[in-house]
Amino acid sequence: MRTLLLVVSALFLSTCFAASQMPSTLTLMPVPAKIELGTGQLVIDQLFTVSVTGAKDARLDSGIPRFLDQLSRQTGMPLNKQPADSAKATLVIRCENAGRKVQELGEDESYTLELTPARATLTARTPLGVLHGLQTFLQLVEPAPAGFAVPVLSIHDEPRFAWRGLLIDVCRHFIPLDVMKRNLDGMAAMKMNVLHWHLSDDEGFRVESKKLPKLHELGSQGQYYTQAEIREFIGYARDRGIRVVPELEMPGHSRSIVVGYPELASQPGPYPPGRVARDATALDVTQEKTYKFLDKLIGEMASLFPDAYLHIGGDEVDDKPWNSNPKIQEFIHAHGMKDNRDLQAYFNKRLENIVSKHGKVMMGWDEVLHPDLPKTVVVQSWRGQESLAAAAKQGYRGLLSNGYYLDLMWPAARHYAVDPMSGAAATLTPDEAKRILGGEACMWAEYITPETIDSRIWPRLAAIAERFWSPQDVKDPKSMYQRLDEVSWRLGWLGLTHESNYVPMLRRLAGTEDIRTLRVLADAVEPTKDYTRTEVYPQPPVQSVPLHRLVDAARPESAVARRFAELVGNYIESGYKDSAAEAQIRAWLVKWQGNHPTLKPLLESSFLLAEDQPLSEDLATLSTAGLQALDSIGKNQPLPEAWRSEQLAVAERSMQPRANLLIMVAPSIQKLVEAASPPPATHP
Amino acid sequence: MRTLLLVVSALFLSTCFAASQMPSTLTLMPVPAKIELGTGQLVIDQLFTVSVTGAKDARLDSGIPRFLDQLSRQTGMPLNKQPADSAKATLVIRCENAGRKVQELGEDESYTLELTPARATLTARTPLGVLHGLQTFLQLVEPAPAGFAVPVLSIHDEPRFAWRGLLIDVCRHFIPLDVMKRNLDGMAAMKMNVLHWHLSDDEGFRVESKKLPKLHELGSQGQYYTQAEIREFIGYARDRGIRVVPELEMPGHSRSIVVGYPELASQPGPYPPGRVARDATALDVTQEKTYKFLDKLIGEMASLFPDAYLHIGGDEVDDKPWNSNPKIQEFIHAHGMKDNRDLQAYFNKRLENIVSKHGKVMMGWDEVLHPDLPKTVVVQSWRGQESLAAAAKQGYRGLLSNGYYLDLMWPAARHYAVDPMSGAAATLTPDEAKRILGGEACMWAEYITPETIDSRIWPRLAAIAERFWSPQDVKDPKSMYQRLDEVSWRLGWLGLTHESNYVPMLRRLAGTEDIRTLRVLADAVEPTKDYTRTEVYPQPPVQSVPLHRLVDAARPESAVARRFAELVGNYIESGYKDSAAEAQIRAWLVKWQGNHPTLKPLLESSFLLAEDQPLSEDLATLSTAGLQALDSIGKNQPLPEAWRSEQLAVAERSMQPRANLLIMVAPSIQKLVEAASPPPATHP
Repeated sequence: MRTLLLVVSALFLSTCFAASQMPSTLTLMPVPAKIELGTGQLVIDQLFTVSVTGAKDARLDSGIPRFLDQLSRQTGMPLNKQPADSAKATLVIRCENAGRKVQELGEDESYTLELTPARATLTARTPLGVLHGLQTFLQLVEPAPAGFAVPVLSIHDEPRFAWRGLLIDVCRHFIPLDVMKRNLDGMAAMKMNVLHWHLSDDEGFRVESKKLPKLHELGSQGQYYTQAEIREFIGYARDRGIRVVPELEMPGHSRSIVVGYPELASQPGPYPPGRVARDATALDVTQEKTYKFLDKLIGEMASLFPDAYLHIGGDEVDDKPWNSNPKIQEFIHAHGMKDNRDLQAYFNKRLENIVSKHGKVMMGWDEVLHPDLPKTVVVQSWRGQESLAAAAKQGYRGLLSNGYYLDLMWPAARHYAVDPMSGAAATLTPDEAKRILGGEACMWAEYITPETIDSRIWPRLAAIAERFWSPQDVKDPKSMYQRLDEVSWRLGWLGLTHESNYVPMLRRLAGTEDIRTLRVLADAVEPTKDYTRTEVYPQPPVQSVPLHRLVDAARPESAVARRFAELVGNYIESGYKDSAAEAQIRAWLVKWQGNHPTLKPLLESSFLLAEDQPLSEDLATLSTAGLQALDSIGKNQPLPEAWRSEQLAVAERSMQPRANLLIMVAPSIQKLVEAASPPPATHP
Repeated sequence: MRTLLLVVSALFLSTCFAASQMPSTLTLMPVPAKIELGTGQLVIDQLFTVSVTGAKDARLDSGIPRFLDQLSRQTGMPLNKQPADSAKATLVIRCENAGRKVQELGEDESYTLELTPARATLTARTPLGVLHGLQTFLQLVEPAPAGFAVPVLSIHDEPRFAWRGLLIDVCRHFIPLDVMKRNLDGMAAMKMNVLHWHLSDDEGFRVESKKLPKLHELGSQGQYYTQAEIREFIGYARDRGIRVVPELEMPGHSRSIVVGYPELASQPGPYPPGRVARDATALDVTQEKTYKFLDKLIGEMASLFPDAYLHIGGDEVDDKPWNSNPKIQEFIHAHGMKDNRDLQAYFNKRLENIVSKHGKVMMGWDEVLHPDLPKTVVVQSWRGQESLAAAAKQGYRGLLSNGYYLDLMWPAARHYAVDPMSGAAATLTPDEAKRILGGEACMWAEYITPETIDSRIWPRLAAIAERFWSPQDVKDPKSMYQRLDEVSWRLGWLGLTHESNYVPMLRRLAGTEDIRTLRVLADAVEPTKDYTRTEVYPQPPVQSVPLHRLVDAARPESAVARRFAELVGNYIESGYKDSAAEAQIRAWLVKWQGNHPTLKPLLESSFLLAEDQPLSEDLATLSTAGLQALDSIGKNQPLPEAWRSEQLAVAERSMQPRANLLIMVAPSIQKLVEAASPPPATHP
């Protein structure tokens, strides 16, 4: 009875928040659809137990102990993993239905979580909803004066989009399964539900084929997953509510196929094994044996991968091998096709027959779109909302990936601002809009290794995950960053190394324990953006280029630069009156100014760091300018134009890639310089 | 020919160092027996290859790819793992003999490493020497202006002691095999060669027994290693040159045995399963069925563990169960024994018969020593060199563990100063001295978990490893610490978490990302020493006490306190003239003084941190006193005695355990206080 009163009073006092106004004390990510906040807490101590009622599902049998392990890791408390009686359990779970044998697109993922001072109740229609609700619960646990606790509240949650994916390219650099798995754990924590596994490309064919063994034997440099490993991995993903959609690239990006089967190529080759730079390869789609081969391959892969969707790539087909093969050009002519584009459409149509014959829905990148293809085909857009909307208008379902390329090294906020339903997609009719299934972030692997991949995916992917899950009006970047900072380190409990590998990589560069000055520089820079990275030394004869320089250790988004920009913004907005901001800005500038002399000997001592000297020097120079600017603003004595243009030149240079890095605090210092020395009035 | 000239000139220029004067530019640990340093470097790039000639051994087949993996991790460079031709390889290995089928005590472990600008040559009599030499090579690789490189030098190395062990207790807290394995990797890096596996104790019996299944079924709370796992683990250790010596405790520390087999106990029980506080249990050694049981158990374990040695514990037998059992007292009387001590000797003699019948050499702790036992028995001394020397004089071989207990939370230098051949052992004749086989560090597990164990073992164990391996005159703590700081982070490449778990544990305590102020406090404290730790809340009903407080996150030895003590030492020794030291001391004191007000709200917000408030407050108070002292010294104006005694009281309190922690910078601040206010002259 006392319990009931507490519940009622808690609900009475509760406040209902639109998701976009979630209270800042909660670090939920993605933000749930609806929250009602009460008062008080449910204490989580070592007596914590869980009960489950309702439908049986193997994912609950494994998911609940995994949840308890995670809670134990997060709190440092050993917990009892025996299931408890519903009447006594702290967390009572009710799962209404068992899930589908193979997880399906659009299965119900909603859940309701009710937390009172006495107990927690999690209800869901499917095991998927239960898994999502458990992740929400874990995010709510925090140390409090009375012990670990979750706040009294009520959440009803469901995803905005049914397809919330991450593509991982394992061709350019092979990614071992343990690394893949910890990333699945991260995805599950962020309620993502599709791993798009980019398994074949010019650089490697990464799946064992028992029917066409030269694919992995000759096309993988020995780096591939066995079928047994793949089955186990798919089970691991399923346990976490994640579908695995394989991608096998064709007819372009197919060098690794023709290494073993050169008779399928449009040019005679040779195609020697070994990892090489991407070169022009395309399957000869005019010969029947190519289709026999693909029928065999897709038949085998369709039974290995249970998911209903199979991605055939289809992007960036290089014309050269087709153009320079007279037989192919003759075929185009003989069949009344206009060009290579028509030839690819012909190929896709035949391919779609094969894919659907083996019971799968075909997916492809933008380029596959052609009126000849059936409307079941799903289009993944690397080109943008316009392309996506065009497909939806023609009746095709689609996914957005443009704007979510993690390898471009954009800040989280830039990805976060991209909405699958914006731009041209915003003009769709409701029926057309339904065809936008969601989106996928893409982790292309030219410049990642098992050591660095986590830092390229996390924490930025969490912001994209929120875009795919949360209501459209959840879009305040400030709130996002506040929560992202907290989510990031918590992801470390899953074994993700995006934070923990930073210091070891800096120490490798320095060859010593004391990296204080190197870290000051590393914290202030970011890898160059988009596709501007260049390698500074020639391709070595074995394996790949080592990725062990400052650009590889540096984070895609510098938290220091972001916070510094905020300080400078506040200072300027206050009309230079915010003296607390001014003091902090000054402290940073003093630190950066003094860093170079101490760091210089270290930079000179290591071949890996020598290239970073100009950056360190310019950071010091810029900081001196910033300090002069602060003094000038403080005294209200504008600095001369000559000074201004000199400093702006340094700032300009600092924002250009050197050693593939940008000094990310430069734009903020530039603002101070401009404030201290306003441009002369222009006379028309 | 050019190569040869280079080699000759390098040797010509070389300098020969006694091991105790190893140049400080090298971070070798343990210090090798002999080094000759040349000039120049051998560059390690992606063309690096290894060749092996001589004897075949599976440990080389696995050890060399593992070495290459490690080199690859350490440099961030993908390397070719194909073995190379001797004429072309960068590193040419020659192994003269294959090793013994089961690694033996005293097998040759020496090696010679010659590094020239053109190539590296590693020669050893056995695979063990090769493995050690590879570890030395890895420690020499550093980034240099021309690339990663090793210096030109020549090392001849061999261990001082044949037995260089680490005991890990897996009874008080169970330690999973992955954690055990990464610690084996750390041991191998430090050239240690014995894992002493403390597998049974009151709190748990951790080995599967197929013949006596109630041992693990009822005595382990479900936490034990299967025999298949143990075999695999022993193979893992063997691959790294490490013997595995099992310990099964008897006749005391045996509660986990009598849980399943109460008929063996001296008192009727009951002995319910479940982890409990240690209570008085001793096997009834007067009854024949006890020996039948032990024959069965030891027979099974002798075939599971291939090592020639089997440790039967034998320490701290609690008299109570024997005293209060009239049948046992009657037995003592009837057999003309004086006391329980004689009874234990009787037991040990019969036990030794069983152990040697099954082909093993018996080991035990000090207490087993008794003239009735054969001289083959090996005594492990937790009591000290006196006890060890006494045993050696009587003809017994022995190991020192006293002084190497890692759970006592001593600084590395204190362990480092303990020498197995010092004290009474220094007076032994050469023949007696040979009986001192070496030593073993001990990691008792009352207050460790898989999360914290690495931080309790590393890096301090590396200093002990050096004591066991390097020549006796290698004993300068300053050089040891200089190298230890570097070795510590490099051990992280093996997956050891002693450094990487620190920040996550602090964040758990704080419940937030920003732990800057908490870290300032955590860096300045250490866990209480020796056996003074007390728990602050009652034993929970399930499993064990959570080990997630500041005392668990804090390092056994604070590097900040050590460096601060050095600064204060330098300052005082300089007659207060070292102004650089003064400035650094001041900076620390200012930081500590200002930390408390910022940290306070965080300490109040978490039940885990509330107990640390007095520490944070006293750190600030002490720092204020330290700053006052600096000012007074600077002005040469001594402070009054009242001030002095007030500050000394705070310092005194700071060195007493609170929340199981000590403020480790307090003694150094105390020195400043004393310097600023000299005690009044005493009038006799």
